[in-house]
Amino acid sequence: MSLATDFGAAYTAICAGVVYSIAPAANVLVLSDEITPYCVREGAMLLRQALPYLPVGVHVGIVDPGVGTPRLPVAIETGRGDVLVGPDNGLLVPAAGKLGGAVRAHALEDPAYRLPEVSTSFHGRDVFSPAAAHIASGVAVSDLGAEVEPRPLDVPPPSVGRGELTVPVLYTDRFGSLVLGAEREDLAAAFGELAPGAPLEVAWSGTAARAVPVTFEETFGGVAPGAPLLWIDSSGWLGLAVNQGSARDAFGLAEVEFLTLRTGAGRPAGD
Amino acid sequence: MSLATDFGAAYTAICAGVVYSIAPAANVLVLSDEITPYCVREGAMLLRQALPYLPVGVHVGIVDPGVGTPRLPVAIETGRGDVLVGPDNGLLVPAAGKLGGAVRAHALEDPAYRLPEVSTSFHGRDVFSPAAAHIASGVAVSDLGAEVEPRPLDVPPPSVGRGELTVPVLYTDRFGSLVLGAEREDLAAAFGELAPGAPLEVAWSGTAARAVPVTFEETFGGVAPGAPLLWIDSSGWLGLAVNQGSARDAFGLAEVEFLTLRTGAGRPAGD
Amino acid sequence: MSLATDFGAAYTAICAGVVYSIAPAANVLVLSDEITPYCVREGAMLLRQALPYLPVGVHVGIVDPGVGTPRLPVAIETGRGDVLVGPDNGLLVPAAGKLGGAVRAHALEDPAYRLPEVSTSFHGRDVFSPAAAHIASGVAVSDLGAEVEPRPLDVPPPSVGRGELTVPVLYTDRFGSLVLGAEREDLAAAFGELAPGAPLEVAWSGTAARAVPVTFEETFGGVAPGAPLLWIDSSGWLGLAVNQGSARDAFGLAEVEFLTLRTGAGRPAGD
Repeated sequence: MSLATDFGAAYTAICAGVVYSIAPAANVLVLSDEITPYCVREGAMLLRQALPYLPVGVHVGIVDPGVGTPRLPVAIETGRGDVLVGPDNGLLVPAAGKLGGAVRAHALEDPAYRLPEVSTSFHGRDVFSPAAAHIASGVAVSDLGAEVEPRPLDVPPPSVGRGELTVPVLYTDRFGSLVLGAEREDLAAAFGELAPGAPLEVAWSGTAARAVPVTFEETFGGVAPGAPLLWIDSSGWLGLAVNQGSARDAFGLAEVEFLTLRTGAGRPAGD
Repeated sequence: MSLATDFGAAYTAICAGVVYSIAPAANVLVLSDEITPYCVREGAMLLRQALPYLPVGVHVGIVDPGVGTPRLPVAIETGRGDVLVGPDNGLLVPAAGKLGGAVRAHALEDPAYRLPEVSTSFHGRDVFSPAAAHIASGVAVSDLGAEVEPRPLDVPPPSVGRGELTVPVLYTDRFGSLVLGAEREDLAAAFGELAPGAPLEVAWSGTAARAVPVTFEETFGGVAPGAPLLWIDSSGWLGLAVNQGSARDAFGLAEVEFLTLRTGAGRPAGD
Repeated sequence: MSLATDFGAAYTAICAGVVYSIAPAANVLVLSDEITPYCVREGAMLLRQALPYLPVGVHVGIVDPGVGTPRLPVAIETGRGDVLVGPDNGLLVPAAGKLGGAVRAHALEDPAYRLPEVSTSFHGRDVFSPAAAHIASGVAVSDLGAEVEPRPLDVPPPSVGRGELTVPVLYTDRFGSLVLGAEREDLAAAFGELAPGAPLEVAWSGTAARAVPVTFEETFGGVAPGAPLLWIDSSGWLGLAVNQGSARDAFGLAEVEFLTLRTGAGRPAGD
């Protein structure tokens, strides 16, 4: 079983404790306890990237800005045989897509699979973890509650033009690299096949609006320490990074939601 | 077995490594490795909140500003059957109270249950973890050393007046919410039964002294994002939070030790 | 098995997931997921300090500024019987020295012990973790690839003079204490045997150049809260700390690479 949350170590470990209390033979792997608080998109991308590398099992994902409001807790069974447990806010859906698709989804309604007392604020402990532990112990997903249609994750698609590509920022990773909502084929659609070192320009609007030259690279080692690069990260997303540095800090990108890439100009004549 | 420390990942994992070296069949859950350094009160509240949700077992808690000075290492057996291991500075006592009370406590004195060499600074590795591993392997608490009376945790009680409640700040959580040393009944004693949305005022002294209006809510969803609320958290404490934000940062509360709550005024006439 | 990385929680857990997928019976202890990014020296010192306290086993260490460039991935077998897996950049060598020395080292070359697809950027997932899992499942180190001579870690030695000791800063720990590349015998070579409370002066150059008085202590409790001290930490290194504070922040030492210690002057006459 795995747990991915925005709770920090302690509240995540409480969830693991609830699992062990109900299913003593479980082996709980904390996939993350440090998702950016309330950032459903970052959590969704993490689960999508990570779960294919974990053994088939029960995987709990919790980033839940809506806790305490009426939103469903769900369990989604995947084609690969996993069960994904968490809030029905789109968090689990991209991962399900990578695990053979969502086969069925049920709401977590039966009080038999919750803790006796359910708080208004800590459904990770009181609702999600008990359900996951019971599923790991053999309870069928269909026994938990009514069948539901999971809500998809809200992410804008990349916008591809000729020699131009506008992409949403999905999230910023721990190294300050921006993970962008576009894949290698989107890059190819805008710019054709790019060789390592190909010059591009990356631009953004807002209070720190700017356009800066950058090269496309297959590895960080393609540019000097401190220099920026565009690349395809290990989960297939386009990324904007700075070798041995932070792209977010170097360019003031903390609040930027979209980037536009353009074919890089050669140096102007006479320069 | 569980481990809760202010050591960070690496030193906490060294403690787990010592446990596995002595008791290879142990299953060590890191409850936290990120307690605020030296903050005994935060650690005590974490253990008090978390341990009731963990299986009965040996639980190590280490927040130990006094390491290297003469203060006892102890093991406390609880009514529920747990053994709590850590420094005798009050850290373990509130949790013991939630686990059926302290049945007996013994100092960790016998060198047979320490590492062969005991450093002056890393008792987590050299004293607490070996003791915990030996207890998990069947050594009786009474074999560790002399019986002792555990020192209580030093926390001021809330001060209840009519239409006024002064409460200590226990600690600030990872989201920047203040956890306050008062429970629902203290709130009721000062203000009667509060309905969701009830207006209160929260005030504090010091360099950032201020009084701000706030409402009592059952859930974060009761106020708009960015708005403050008072609520009862999942472990039963009164809390001051900002929906999808940080109360500490929004109001400059990092150094504040006490808050005073008062009945909220309606808007003054003519306003 | 243990894992120590500069990846943060999620990418480290993906590595654990890969291990469990290949070797379901493994017990993976995350030694650290919070090594300072790219800081090979800090990682090397952590492994050197921690691994002697872990059971004999397979230990993965990954701090790899050169990922994606031609540098070898290696497995080093130790005299104690461990196998250390990671990049051949010196990270693993000091730990091997503490575990009975490096008996043999082989490059991780055979594609049978990698994931089917190897990315350019996430060798932790695609190369190191699969190799470690296969070794834990019984594959011999010599089956992985050609025998190699591991590259040593690049650390300058301390420079001992009469009444003066110049030492490299190895890294700064989570509490803001500086861990210095010198041991008790280096201190003794420069100053003779120092009693607790012995006055010294610590000086550094650079933009924040300064010389400040400090005392040598056996424990933090030897000085008042907020006061600096020199001491020998639990892994045998000389350290510069501030009791219940951060030496790095108190003295502006974030960028300092060397410190010089000198015999402390008594207070000047007439002062």
